[in-house]
Amino acid sequence: MSEDWRLLIDCADQEGLVHKTTGVLYREHCNVLVNHEFADPQSNRFFMRTEFVGDIDKDRIIEELWKVLPPQPFVKLIQPGKTRIAVLATKEHHCVSDILTRCAFGELDAEVAGVIANHDIVRPFIEKFETPFHLCSHVDVSREEQERQVIEQLEEIAPDYIVLAKYMRILSPDFVNRFSNRIINIHHSFLPAFVGAKPYHQAWERGVKVIGATAHYVTEQLDEGPIIEQQVINVDHSHSPQDMARAGRDVERLTLSRALRLVFEGRVFLNGHRTVIFD
Amino acid sequence: MSEDWRLLIDCADQEGLVHKTTGVLYREHCNVLVNHEFADPQSNRFFMRTEFVGDIDKDRIIEELWKVLPPQPFVKLIQPGKTRIAVLATKEHHCVSDILTRCAFGELDAEVAGVIANHDIVRPFIEKFETPFHLCSHVDVSREEQERQVIEQLEEIAPDYIVLAKYMRILSPDFVNRFSNRIINIHHSFLPAFVGAKPYHQAWERGVKVIGATAHYVTEQLDEGPIIEQQVINVDHSHSPQDMARAGRDVERLTLSRALRLVFEGRVFLNGHRTVIFD
Amino acid sequence: MSEDWRLLIDCADQEGLVHKTTGVLYREHCNVLVNHEFADPQSNRFFMRTEFVGDIDKDRIIEELWKVLPPQPFVKLIQPGKTRIAVLATKEHHCVSDILTRCAFGELDAEVAGVIANHDIVRPFIEKFETPFHLCSHVDVSREEQERQVIEQLEEIAPDYIVLAKYMRILSPDFVNRFSNRIINIHHSFLPAFVGAKPYHQAWERGVKVIGATAHYVTEQLDEGPIIEQQVINVDHSHSPQDMARAGRDVERLTLSRALRLVFEGRVFLNGHRTVIFD
Amino acid sequence: MSEDWRLLIDCADQEGLVHKTTGVLYREHCNVLVNHEFADPQSNRFFMRTEFVGDIDKDRIIEELWKVLPPQPFVKLIQPGKTRIAVLATKEHHCVSDILTRCAFGELDAEVAGVIANHDIVRPFIEKFETPFHLCSHVDVSREEQERQVIEQLEEIAPDYIVLAKYMRILSPDFVNRFSNRIINIHHSFLPAFVGAKPYHQAWERGVKVIGATAHYVTEQLDEGPIIEQQVINVDHSHSPQDMARAGRDVERLTLSRALRLVFEGRVFLNGHRTVIFD
Repeated sequence: MSEDWRLLIDCADQEGLVHKTTGVLYREHCNVLVNHEFADPQSNRFFMRTEFVGDIDKDRIIEELWKVLPPQPFVKLIQPGKTRIAVLATKEHHCVSDILTRCAFGELDAEVAGVIANHDIVRPFIEKFETPFHLCSHVDVSREEQERQVIEQLEEIAPDYIVLAKYMRILSPDFVNRFSNRIINIHHSFLPAFVGAKPYHQAWERGVKVIGATAHYVTEQLDEGPIIEQQVINVDHSHSPQDMARAGRDVERLTLSRALRLVFEGRVFLNGHRTVIFD
Repeated sequence: MSEDWRLLIDCADQEGLVHKTTGVLYREHCNVLVNHEFADPQSNRFFMRTEFVGDIDKDRIIEELWKVLPPQPFVKLIQPGKTRIAVLATKEHHCVSDILTRCAFGELDAEVAGVIANHDIVRPFIEKFETPFHLCSHVDVSREEQERQVIEQLEEIAPDYIVLAKYMRILSPDFVNRFSNRIINIHHSFLPAFVGAKPYHQAWERGVKVIGATAHYVTEQLDEGPIIEQQVINVDHSHSPQDMARAGRDVERLTLSRALRLVFEGRVFLNGHRTVIFD
Repeated sequence: MSEDWRLLIDCADQEGLVHKTTGVLYREHCNVLVNHEFADPQSNRFFMRTEFVGDIDKDRIIEELWKVLPPQPFVKLIQPGKTRIAVLATKEHHCVSDILTRCAFGELDAEVAGVIANHDIVRPFIEKFETPFHLCSHVDVSREEQERQVIEQLEEIAPDYIVLAKYMRILSPDFVNRFSNRIINIHHSFLPAFVGAKPYHQAWERGVKVIGATAHYVTEQLDEGPIIEQQVINVDHSHSPQDMARAGRDVERLTLSRALRLVFEGRVFLNGHRTVIFD
Repeated sequence: MSEDWRLLIDCADQEGLVHKTTGVLYREHCNVLVNHEFADPQSNRFFMRTEFVGDIDKDRIIEELWKVLPPQPFVKLIQPGKTRIAVLATKEHHCVSDILTRCAFGELDAEVAGVIANHDIVRPFIEKFETPFHLCSHVDVSREEQERQVIEQLEEIAPDYIVLAKYMRILSPDFVNRFSNRIINIHHSFLPAFVGAKPYHQAWERGVKVIGATAHYVTEQLDEGPIIEQQVINVDHSHSPQDMARAGRDVERLTLSRALRLVFEGRVFLNGHRTVIFD
């Protein structure tokens, strides 16, 4: 029976890779709908994403691909379907409420399997959607202990991806490595500008005319992970720091939801500190 | 000797085209640098643009491609290099001056082989750049006669493309067909909105908050040809029609120069009334 | 006791209006925080919005203002506070869910006093927020009867503003006049382009590179009312009509919520077919 | 005889300033066309820009204004007219050529009284416009000596403003103070991000999805002066550092020319490290 598939390949670049790869699909009678590839002349890596329809033996195709690709390729065959996510929040609602609403109406092909927060503020909203809410308060517990509780919840939820929807706690290297390349964050203002606290106040002090948001993978370096999506919005002298923050919330929720869609559809490849995005 | 080539293919879609096409290049020991393809499920057409390096026999590669492609494919092999253009203008300078300046500094890989205008206003600027200027006035001559003079100049110039840089005269169907798919226009405001005279006044009357520009191929239907590029800029109630026109000029020159770069680099394919653009 | 006030003035223009108006506030010991005014040289109208703090006798200030302003001025003194709104929807959720979420968290200073729809699809979402939902189905009833039922609900709700959040029914002139200047609509794509059904298909057929949304007051002329806000988003040839619609939904919800904030804060003045907006 | 005037005021804020100021103009029978004012609650400064028409005694009006304003106000009365500028460049042409072209066609109300560069590259373009070009090479001379030569030229040119159009030399504090608040710079990429050399390579390394430009006043702190205008443009993984630089040039020239228009029309006020802009 013919089904929809998405083939993701990331390997060392060499001559003829598109030809060899599409040859495997051709011989298996698959019908390629969309094909994107990119060879990075700097990292010498080859990236390819192919949407195709076919009645396939998944293991055999992967085996055939391994035969024609350079050693140790990353090869993944996925099917469209709901991504299972956990969302971490603190006090602000705008990103987590946007994700829940989009998921509720099928605008984002994901299921929010749980929301974890260190404050109770967003709980009433979350529970309207019959989504489990877990409070992991940071009050009266050590940083390590609070994070341990979050990890415990996450291991129970077992999500494909963890979304930091304005989660204002610093993650330990251990946490980041445990969920390596599976944590996505949304960051106010411009990366790498205004690192640190009160970014909208910093932006206001600097008199910026543009406010932005960056969605990125989380790595050990705070706010320095590979960028997935950036968007901006205009501001002017009449905006108070609060007005800038409000403008920032609008651009943050849009930037994050777009980044999540790209990731969930298998459109984002890591390329060292950078990303390759096929949209 | 290895040289840079760009292969452009446009044909009926069928299974395995990427595989077969890249196979030809692979067997000729060409090194593919960038590959874009798009299969339109509506028109059932296949579009592909490949940048490769190789020491090739151009005729043999085209012959080999014809063997593996569906009947009557469009196949073109081009090399980077200056595109020869003629620019038509009326009174406004902002597009023609932008094109000339970019060409002068190699920002746009083209040579302005001649500027034709029905007014003398931009002549002094054009002649600073040692570019031939031809006045084809519409005063005291019939529409047909004026157009005949323009065509005469164009046939002498023999350009690859004709750029309408705010040329405010309507072209006859005969003119359009004579230079079919080789005329590019920049249009104020939004297509298909505000067709007709004084568009900025119309936009002002309507109280729009956004002003745009559209660069498109010219077809027999006035301002209805395939769109290459669109950009917009914000305006508000404090803008007079003149302010809107000024904002419009900025977005027009940027939109046109970007469209021209895309066309000259072989990145734009016609797909019925639409375009496919590989950027 | 000192309170926050917003003074809105719209009158025929004449010399010295800013001086005379601010004089009234000055003599009443009010402290002006922000002042915007605009004199339209075309319509010869004067518009002014002043935020001030003061312990005032509201009636006396209005009386004093009438004395110094030209005949029949529009003068309004409002205080910050929740605007009471009714939302009309059909099947699509993205605008009504965005409004409800923003109101729930105080991001939009309004109270959704009721949602009326001609389909039952968004009901479960609405009822999560303890907001009254009224179904006024168009099935098996005449156009007049269905509208009569909507009006009945609206008169019970008694909203300050009616928001058409993707309400896909045409309103009668009687309906529009009954709630004159109090109905706000969000329109897909660009006004006045692509009027009519299936706009995203029309936009796709046309091969547009930009998708927009327009929030506007509703007048008897369908989709031709004064524009409050317009925003756009980029698209390309790889977008299907469905992808364009998805991009459109993002720009629609943002455009509508911004327009509503501007209206609710008293920042939007009608100026014939146009608006004056002080932001 | 009635003439166009622009009144600029910057002073400590206090109650009734708009009333008192417009009172002076009212009593002098001036007709106010546009009025903008802004009171900054943080710095407690009041800013006002008024366009009016009148047959005035300039000295008397300033005297009257001083009487009603707080101690030591900044008061300036200017008339529309060409601003005299000097442009400093290095090797890149895109900003200086844009300025010259706009001035040539009256799009920017300024006269380029001279171009100074430390390379000879842009000379042929400059001289096409009969504009004096001065080479102040940095080769075989000390930094101090080269700057001394530039200052010498500038003192002869006696410009109202100095525009750094991609002038890649660091200015000494003495230079900056000598022309205090009269030097405008255009900066690649985002301020304050990527300070230092090769910004587009830094941006590429970081995998940014947005490239911007900032036009700002020059102060002793390199690239940290008050921001006048910021704009951005989208990029993606397929852009090389060179492609990013090309995108950056487009946004730089547009950002700078817009900033210059704002400054020349008296629309930009300094407010500590920030600007107030009335557009």
